[in-house]
Amino acid sequence: MSPASIELLGFTAAALTSLCWLPQAWRTIRTRDTKAISLWTQSLLALGTVLWFTYGLQIASWPVVVANALTLCLVLLILSMKLRFG
Amino acid sequence: MSPASIELLGFTAAALTSLCWLPQAWRTIRTRDTKAISLWTQSLLALGTVLWFTYGLQIASWPVVVANALTLCLVLLILSMKLRFG
Repeated sequence: MSPASIELLGFTAAALTSLCWLPQAWRTIRTRDTKAISLWTQSLLALGTVLWFTYGLQIASWPVVVANALTLCLVLLILSMKLRFG
Repeated sequence: MSPASIELLGFTAAALTSLCWLPQAWRTIRTRDTKAISLWTQSLLALGTVLWFTYGLQIASWPVVVANALTLCLVLLILSMKLRFG
């Protein structure tokens, strides 16, 4: 694959795995139902996302950096609702 | 950071954002409760994970490859339970 195609692939992957949290955040805001969501999963995901962000900076992979910054915002929003609604 | 430290950071991030799906999978298997989980989120996450895996192969980043292979297995398991239990 050409470098441009690889970059495009990375950005598409980044867009999907970041924006995928929008429907979950919206559903949780709307229903206030977090019962089936694992607190451990959301907490470890938030922590892991911080580490991926740092890793992306180190290897200068912008899809990794941008994806994880956006993911972190959405995951922290869902995590805060899990902590609030139980 | 040294190349070894960057690799370690990547593998720690990979371990966290992959293994974080274990508590969610276990909770869902145990309770069969998937009501609060977004079908869109799980579906887009599965698709995005496939793209990240391919991207990881292209840039030869083993943390990205290994993390996303493991994540895909767990996310597909949760997705299949969401489709089954509603």
